Amino acid sequence: MQDTRDIRLAVIPGDGIGTEVVAEGLKVLDAAGIKLDTTGYDLGAKRYHETGETLPDAVLSELRAYDAILLGAVGDPSVPPGVLERDLLLKLRFELDHYVNLRPVKLFPGVQTPLGGVSSEDIDMVVVREGTEGPYAGAGGVLRKGTPHEVATQESLNTAYGVERVVRYAFEKAKSRPRRKLTLVHKTNVLTYAGDLWARVTDRVATEFPEVTVDYCHVDAASMFFVNQPQRFDVIVTDNLFGDILTDIGAAIAGGIGLAASGNVNPDRTAPSMFEPVHGSAPDIAGQGKADPTATILSVAMLLDHLGLAKDAARIEQAVADDLLERRETAATRSTSEIGDHIAARVAG
Amino acid sequence: MQDTRDIRLAVIPGDGIGTEVVAEGLKVLDAAGIKLDTTGYDLGAKRYHETGETLPDAVLSELRAYDAILLGAVGDPSVPPGVLERDLLLKLRFELDHYVNLRPVKLFPGVQTPLGGVSSEDIDMVVVREGTEGPYAGAGGVLRKGTPHEVATQESLNTAYGVERVVRYAFEKAKSRPRRKLTLVHKTNVLTYAGDLWARVTDRVATEFPEVTVDYCHVDAASMFFVNQPQRFDVIVTDNLFGDILTDIGAAIAGGIGLAASGNVNPDRTAPSMFEPVHGSAPDIAGQGKADPTATILSVAMLLDHLGLAKDAARIEQAVADDLLERRETAATRSTSEIGDHIAARVAG
Ligand SMILES: CC(C)[C@H](C(=O)O)[C@@H](O)C(=O)O
Ligand SMILES: CC(C)[C@H](C(=O)O)[C@@H](O)C(=O)O
Repeated sequence: MQDTRDIRLAVIPGDGIGTEVVAEGLKVLDAAGIKLDTTGYDLGAKRYHETGETLPDAVLSELRAYDAILLGAVGDPSVPPGVLERDLLLKLRFELDHYVNLRPVKLFPGVQTPLGGVSSEDIDMVVVREGTEGPYAGAGGVLRKGTPHEVATQESLNTAYGVERVVRYAFEKAKSRPRRKLTLVHKTNVLTYAGDLWARVTDRVATEFPEVTVDYCHVDAASMFFVNQPQRFDVIVTDNLFGDILTDIGAAIAGGIGLAASGNVNPDRTAPSMFEPVHGSAPDIAGQGKADPTATILSVAMLLDHLGLAKDAARIEQAVADDLLERRETAATRSTSEIGDHIAARVAG
Repeated sequence: MQDTRDIRLAVIPGDGIGTEVVAEGLKVLDAAGIKLDTTGYDLGAKRYHETGETLPDAVLSELRAYDAILLGAVGDPSVPPGVLERDLLLKLRFELDHYVNLRPVKLFPGVQTPLGGVSSEDIDMVVVREGTEGPYAGAGGVLRKGTPHEVATQESLNTAYGVERVVRYAFEKAKSRPRRKLTLVHKTNVLTYAGDLWARVTDRVATEFPEVTVDYCHVDAASMFFVNQPQRFDVIVTDNLFGDILTDIGAAIAGGIGLAASGNVNPDRTAPSMFEPVHGSAPDIAGQGKADPTATILSVAMLLDHLGLAKDAARIEQAVADDLLERRETAATRSTSEIGDHIAARVAG
């Protein structure tokens, strides 16, 4: 926890709308009076095409020196699917030991949700998604590729070390919230080896947190409850893949991917944490000023919170909340930079 | 395709509400004038406690002789989690080569959905879930269990043989529907070995079905679209685990788990197919006449359709549709058997 308003920030705008939304995030940080020392990194599709590089070792080690990283989005149709995701985005998460992928699912007042009859009190949870193992480990292989006898495997790797640290983080998070409820989501009845590890670790850590109510939900049921009983959830802890799926459902019920923020957090601070909107690079609307930068701005608030600047974070979140209400009331259609301007003005004012 | 109205049916009521809903399914089959020769099998928690057996080999080979199987639900809190699921339910699906797990997601007129502003035309799809491989294969292991150095693995096994047959089935299904659209759902950017196999097989089979429009969606995005753009989907083909999750979201948006039907289909007819509601045994409401048997009744319609009795199937589905509309209009609260009675009366009438 540095608790100073000077931040050394690495910025990776990335591809597509990444550049546009990141600019608005920086605008709002600036309006908040944060003293930023930013360095941009041109990682993404362009660099890949020019040099074949996704995340060179030298860049990775440079990145370690920053207080935090702000990432826009990576991915472009011109790059073979998965290359930038795995060799850039996931590599950053794994190498910088972002074992907590923190994803709030919160319906701000005035925001339209596809769910009928729910209000903002009904949707207010945090998904603590494991970020460094599970089915994302990249383990697997292929035999007799392209033949009728092809076999492809994909392995989920789970360790007591990896599960326990994220579960403990989730308990701390649950303890700090009014409802003090934690739900483990997995598929223990089918994924018995991994599920059993998650369940045993959760049970054990639970004894250290008697004030937290714990329950368990299979991922299929949890996905259903996101839609028809979102009130059920406060803090959720889950594996990397289930967290990926649940947080997209979460984004949908909380008003869309344009509002979903996330932090790839290294709680031990052995490397910088990285903040990014949940949405992708959306090449179809890139460069048109159509992207909603709100998810990035909320991610920037999470970044400040992580660096000990809770008050500044809260101020930005409040500005976003106020702006969302205003956008609703005035039925305003605003461009990417107009949204950034409005929120920045509220933060500065 | 037998196309006779004599059916040799194995019935596995199972646990909890399984018994209650299965009775209504049989009632409706009877009302439809189907000549049933039924044999009940007491598989489930009770048998497990009495004999330690889940699915004895002798029973499994007996089951092979039937035209079809009707299953209620298995699972009980008194049995260690996963035992009945794996050693009974999944064993049946795997041993009887139910490689198509067919799950319609259809919003009947008059049925309430948690989604605001959608009507029954917006939600009408079929999920073709692979049923015999993937992460459900049971492969995996554990090392140093219970120690801080524990490692648990879980392996997804995918074969060209297994993927191709279910993909081909899905194309046939898409071809038979008005929109002729097929969406492959996977997570090719992360699960690269398995995802690549699925994508390549789909591309190849697509050349045989030029009349079908094919697209691809990552599972996280698809889960979101189920909630905010369900119109997007017609037929979906996906792996065992993604299908599990998507069809529970599907159940939620189509009015709840009480209405979600499924067929575990062996399209090659080398063994009987098995029809079951998507819901579980719901021990909390068992024996109280509170369970909605509609999912089972719709599953029974799928059973008839599979056996070549398409007209009888359509008659039952229509009776369900009419009854759902009536239930809505009269705001009727009906018991399990009352719902069965009403639908049976419509079918008979
Ligand atoms: C782009 C992709 C690799 C990534 C993920 O699966 O984690 C994305 O979906 C996310 O949720 O951040
Ligand atoms: C009970 C469980 C093993 C099963 C599954 O995961 O397939 C259920 O959720 C289903 O969808 O039929």
